[in-house]
Amino acid sequence: MKILLVGGNGTIGKAVFKALSKKHEVLVAGRNSGDFQVNIANPESIEKLYKNTGMLDAVVCTAGETKWAPFSQMGIDDYLIGIKSKLMGQVNLVRLGVNVLNPGGSFTLTTGILAEEPVAMTTGAALANGGVHSFVKAAALELTNGHRINVVAPGLVEDSAEKFADYFPGHDAVPMQKVANGYLKSVEGKITGQIIRIYG
Amino acid sequence: MKILLVGGNGTIGKAVFKALSKKHEVLVAGRNSGDFQVNIANPESIEKLYKNTGMLDAVVCTAGETKWAPFSQMGIDDYLIGIKSKLMGQVNLVRLGVNVLNPGGSFTLTTGILAEEPVAMTTGAALANGGVHSFVKAAALELTNGHRINVVAPGLVEDSAEKFADYFPGHDAVPMQKVANGYLKSVEGKITGQIIRIYG
Repeated sequence: MKILLVGGNGTIGKAVFKALSKKHEVLVAGRNSGDFQVNIANPESIEKLYKNTGMLDAVVCTAGETKWAPFSQMGIDDYLIGIKSKLMGQVNLVRLGVNVLNPGGSFTLTTGILAEEPVAMTTGAALANGGVHSFVKAAALELTNGHRINVVAPGLVEDSAEKFADYFPGHDAVPMQKVANGYLKSVEGKITGQIIRIYG
Repeated sequence: MKILLVGGNGTIGKAVFKALSKKHEVLVAGRNSGDFQVNIANPESIEKLYKNTGMLDAVVCTAGETKWAPFSQMGIDDYLIGIKSKLMGQVNLVRLGVNVLNPGGSFTLTTGILAEEPVAMTTGAALANGGVHSFVKAAALELTNGHRINVVAPGLVEDSAEKFADYFPGHDAVPMQKVANGYLKSVEGKITGQIIRIYG
């Protein structure tokens, strides 16, 4: 398959690249690195990306920004960071991606355990992730040409566990290979409309 | 209790008003009717509302707009209708409402079954509802002064079942009293961070 991996240089993206590139041609898009540059918060940047990739068999997104801050300090603009990037950025990757996705192709988005088990300081991240979950279920009902869509929701992942451990008391760190397997399940399998939970 | 009911003249709002007003003083806010006028998509309108209500024991929101359309026709502006109203409108009712809510007071928001069981043409509505679900869980962890927050997620409700039946094949219509009970559970009970599902 010819696969576009958006966010391929992030913590999760690197593990997904390693797993996917064993069997597939993987094009990496990133903010400042990779084969293509893209800012998913900007719909025009996504349009330009797809013009450059040509037709694809799968689009995988491990990118998306959200603001972490105490609820009492979260202003509207803070929520908008996640809404524009993690939420609408991924929605727009799908909306615009249907035109370059071959029949039977798939979209695989990324959220996280915060959508269902938030921790302190994550109202903005939880909101964006929860929106993506419901969008994926709804979009799966209407995609055409055999297109599929799923979302991988990892827990605290091993490669960034040290950095984030204090925010996630009592959370088990998930091995990167287990996280990457969630993406393989979506890309190489036949499922659609699924939230693939990799919580521990 | 002194309760503010935003959207009190809608299908669900009327049933909630009937149930709450038996025991409580209920102030109704609506777009064009009620004791106060408010457009929840406009944060300044919410600020003005709270200046007029004074201190409250509970805020209940049964308002919020979303755009229904086939996925292939949903543009960014269509998603933004739900994001500004149903999603951020309710988030802003909470953000700004903490200042006028008495200790121990509660917020009760409204979503719907679409967050978890979407139907065709509801990518925009599902996304907004799913975002609210995760926000409620996250915000509950950080509210202070004993404030609580829950969200009621009704299925197809009896009083609008005829209008929407074709969109919800096989869905049972939920009696209005059962829907209203979900709000009582949140307002008069002690729970917080809950998605109160009233699906059938």
